[in-house]
Amino acid sequence: MGRIPESAKQVFKGKIFDVWQWEQTMFDGTTATFEMLRRPNTATVIPVVDDKILVTVERQPNHTQASTTIPGGRCEPNEDSRVAAERELLEETGYTADDWHLLLATQPVSKIDWTVYVYVARNCRKLQEPHLDNGEEITSKLVTFDEFLMLADDPTFWEQHLVPLMLRARLNPVYREELHVKIFGV
Amino acid sequence: MGRIPESAKQVFKGKIFDVWQWEQTMFDGTTATFEMLRRPNTATVIPVVDDKILVTVERQPNHTQASTTIPGGRCEPNEDSRVAAERELLEETGYTADDWHLLLATQPVSKIDWTVYVYVARNCRKLQEPHLDNGEEITSKLVTFDEFLMLADDPTFWEQHLVPLMLRARLNPVYREELHVKIFGV
Repeated sequence: MGRIPESAKQVFKGKIFDVWQWEQTMFDGTTATFEMLRRPNTATVIPVVDDKILVTVERQPNHTQASTTIPGGRCEPNEDSRVAAERELLEETGYTADDWHLLLATQPVSKIDWTVYVYVARNCRKLQEPHLDNGEEITSKLVTFDEFLMLADDPTFWEQHLVPLMLRARLNPVYREELHVKIFGV
Repeated sequence: MGRIPESAKQVFKGKIFDVWQWEQTMFDGTTATFEMLRRPNTATVIPVVDDKILVTVERQPNHTQASTTIPGGRCEPNEDSRVAAERELLEETGYTADDWHLLLATQPVSKIDWTVYVYVARNCRKLQEPHLDNGEEITSKLVTFDEFLMLADDPTFWEQHLVPLMLRARLNPVYREELHVKIFGV
């Protein structure tokens, strides 16, 4: 993955996206203006409740269709991704947990400096009702591990960066077992 | 997928990315400023040479590692994606073809108005040597269909939006057969 170099200058600051440009030396020694974006990192969580996974069904104001997804949202500036994941889990589902593990950290788009963190939160328990903001319509439901893996075939499933991992688990029993241990601890 | 609405205004024009903003009505009737990006569409091609697929190995000036990928590049403004795919195939590999089929058109990122087209070009023949620009170091090689499907496991494989399709083909013999027909015509 290319990353934004130290020499880059910020040329635009938006609501979500910042734009950075720099002079890049090409293979023939000439230079060209290169451009990349930065956006707040995303923290998501696979919440484990007993032997099930708590998934969410979300609708957004500019989308007509509801999406199946997992709890998560933007990290605040300088906020630890784990803290953001805990906050989003509590706000969107009312659940909390003490047993956290980082499953995956991925950069989904080559020209965007943007990391998506996927945590596992084991032994989740309901603490309160969800606190949704005015851009969220979210409900949650419990699914089995197998039902979760089948969500890779749901065209509305939001977490496309998890799809390869879910398909690999269905393809390879050893990998399925490893993923089960990573999520459930057993 | 949310798309940029008619009412959106362009607030930044970059080298690759343009930024658009609009006032979005929220679920409670209040409004908030929403932001999306637009970037040129991408046209890529799976070139078929006899019973093999021509993949490319590319290095970019701001990346240290070479990536395995398929020929492709940005569409010019108002350029048909199929025309762009033909141009990129010829420039990057020196190959040309008359038998074109659209395999897939996908929007990889929800907040970016950006479509990646994947064409199949059957009966490719070599016309000339590649014409690479000063930001490209590209070689090409022929792989079998099975070798192509295994590229889903190569961490340098560039076309992450093809990975689910390749894994599904390995997971399901019926889907594998369908994909073979879509690519090779038989």
